[in-house]
Amino acid sequence: MVYREILQRGQKIILVVVDGIGGLPVLGGFTEMELAHLPNLDALARKYPVGALEPVAAGITPGSGPAHLSLFGYDPLNYRIGRGILEALGVGLEVRKGDLAIRGNFATVRDGVVVDRRAGRIPTEENRRLIEKLKAIDKVGDVEVIWKSGKEYRFVLLLRGEGLSENVRETDPGKEGLPPVAPEPTIPEGEKTARILKEIYRRAVEILKDEERANYFLLRGYATYPDIPTFQERWGLRAFGTAAYPMYRGLAKLVGMDVPDDTPDFESELKALEESWDKYDFFYIHFKDADKAGEDGDWKRKVEALQTFDSYVPRLLGLGGVLAVTGDHDTPCLIRGHSWHYVPLLIASKRAGVPTAWHFTERESLKGSLGLRRSTELMGLLLATAGWLKKYGA
Amino acid sequence: MVYREILQRGQKIILVVVDGIGGLPVLGGFTEMELAHLPNLDALARKYPVGALEPVAAGITPGSGPAHLSLFGYDPLNYRIGRGILEALGVGLEVRKGDLAIRGNFATVRDGVVVDRRAGRIPTEENRRLIEKLKAIDKVGDVEVIWKSGKEYRFVLLLRGEGLSENVRETDPGKEGLPPVAPEPTIPEGEKTARILKEIYRRAVEILKDEERANYFLLRGYATYPDIPTFQERWGLRAFGTAAYPMYRGLAKLVGMDVPDDTPDFESELKALEESWDKYDFFYIHFKDADKAGEDGDWKRKVEALQTFDSYVPRLLGLGGVLAVTGDHDTPCLIRGHSWHYVPLLIASKRAGVPTAWHFTERESLKGSLGLRRSTELMGLLLATAGWLKKYGA
Repeated sequence: MVYREILQRGQKIILVVVDGIGGLPVLGGFTEMELAHLPNLDALARKYPVGALEPVAAGITPGSGPAHLSLFGYDPLNYRIGRGILEALGVGLEVRKGDLAIRGNFATVRDGVVVDRRAGRIPTEENRRLIEKLKAIDKVGDVEVIWKSGKEYRFVLLLRGEGLSENVRETDPGKEGLPPVAPEPTIPEGEKTARILKEIYRRAVEILKDEERANYFLLRGYATYPDIPTFQERWGLRAFGTAAYPMYRGLAKLVGMDVPDDTPDFESELKALEESWDKYDFFYIHFKDADKAGEDGDWKRKVEALQTFDSYVPRLLGLGGVLAVTGDHDTPCLIRGHSWHYVPLLIASKRAGVPTAWHFTERESLKGSLGLRRSTELMGLLLATAGWLKKYGA
Repeated sequence: MVYREILQRGQKIILVVVDGIGGLPVLGGFTEMELAHLPNLDALARKYPVGALEPVAAGITPGSGPAHLSLFGYDPLNYRIGRGILEALGVGLEVRKGDLAIRGNFATVRDGVVVDRRAGRIPTEENRRLIEKLKAIDKVGDVEVIWKSGKEYRFVLLLRGEGLSENVRETDPGKEGLPPVAPEPTIPEGEKTARILKEIYRRAVEILKDEERANYFLLRGYATYPDIPTFQERWGLRAFGTAAYPMYRGLAKLVGMDVPDDTPDFESELKALEESWDKYDFFYIHFKDADKAGEDGDWKRKVEALQTFDSYVPRLLGLGGVLAVTGDHDTPCLIRGHSWHYVPLLIASKRAGVPTAWHFTERESLKGSLGLRRSTELMGLLLATAGWLKKYGA
């Protein structure tokens, strides 16, 4: 990494991730960002350069994990975060090096056959009651066993100890009418983990035996903690992250950012950021609502979410430093989900490039002087703009 | 390299490097190129395609070495030119394969401790007097020793012979109050070089012992000649280069271009190019003044420099062949130094692409049909436009 070779001290950097920011035409040929009234962002777009980022590669729609890694400057095709780890982060479990995280589904088994892979979508409260009972299984041999409820029938099983491995068969047969699969090792390395999972099943089946619907559970997405350098190791900056949702806090923690946990909304995220201003060089802050509205295909709510975010811009600017606004990915209402399209980007600094836009929109960002790039390249632009990079070569 | 596989004979190509060409808004929101009156370049921009080049990678501000290598089609992250070699090129020393080039600083040492790493910034004339004396040391064993003055306290020491190595400790302790470091080998490969440097020091200290300020010197930036294919090996074209400054002549020589030395200004560069027109396929010519004004943050002088360059455009066009105008990097007056931003590019050929611009400016070049690319990709566009490339595949 040539960036580390030419590092010097620079200004503070704020990276705002407006989750699902961009969209596609939804009304009269206009997109979500075009329909929104964004006076503060538009003022920045007239004064400073815009551009657009491709989260992973042409046509690749990323989940939140790869999309965030990419913005943090890690190629998500090289650094893969297993599904179990993401689920664990999503339910707010702390995950450490060496841990094995597993997605669990409560299920219904009759006569040795899975008759419902989701246990009739039991309500979250019932899930919580069952997980409380299963917590009796808190240790097998030298391995700590951690249970955490998710929504409805979902939970996370986390094993903590030495020598754990992903190389065990998933117990979910993938469809109803088949027996659960035994957690056998797929290679010898998986033997210890298989032994522990079998013992967990032996005790758990006893605990759940009188349940009408959730009398069993299926495991998949085994994932050990990824071998990933910290943000500070990679870029040399002391980093702070803040997000209302556990998944995003978890992603920031995964790359070694310091992340407060008591930030239930954007207002409290911003407050936490302000209070930590003196202690860090780099600040990641996450705004969720645009993505949620996009997933629901509700463009009016997405427009409102963008407008709400816009109202926070003066406060972010007031902190000083270099402010960048972008998204981890677009969530077009037309698609009702994440998408692969270029994500609008704005860097509020005269040094960042020539201004070219009148408004901060999907369309105008495509023609900006920050270019069309992979999201992994954003960190280079931010470091340069904030003065963290010396000249390369003479 | 697929280019070599599909090479055929084409037209002549002229690559004009307007050093530090692009900028950022400096007056009323307008950039240097927008403020300049460039009737000849603007006429080309209306008729031919424009585009923009990224010298190295996102956010990387290149020195002249990496920036030029990139334009010549060598990835500067793979081909690194050591500091000593660049200094040697900068003072106009001829450098050959196997040479070891070293940056020297005259310094003041008292009681075994460096008290001034720059010998009180002695004037260049004093430097020249000392170097004349040190030239008495012209050979150590089988190694030729070459001395050349730079500005003030700086000089270059070049060793020429067999088995020289960079793997010797730099003698500069990096700050005052410490003794000079002995030039010990860092690995066994460096032993011969270390022995020679110690002998040079032994004799030099004797020569300098009565100097009040420059009674010692410190060495750093050891660099052997890079292992780099010639331009003709890489692209198949016979190449000519011309520049007023030794550094740029040296860079052209480094990739094996034929370069005349008696070209003190752009006028004489252009004359040398015209006189060599029949003998080469590719012509590199360097215009320096825009960069100098940018480094000084003097946008009026930069505008003048661009206008001066513009006045030469008809003469360059008159030569025939495919004319490309770009820079090695931007030098925005706002930044007062090289920058990482996209560099405007124009290729004066109807074959090169669709015209899109009214003026040749930073902003309009971003939207041109030559695209936004790494500078290393320019050679492909030039070869294609000038007819040097056959169809790839059937």
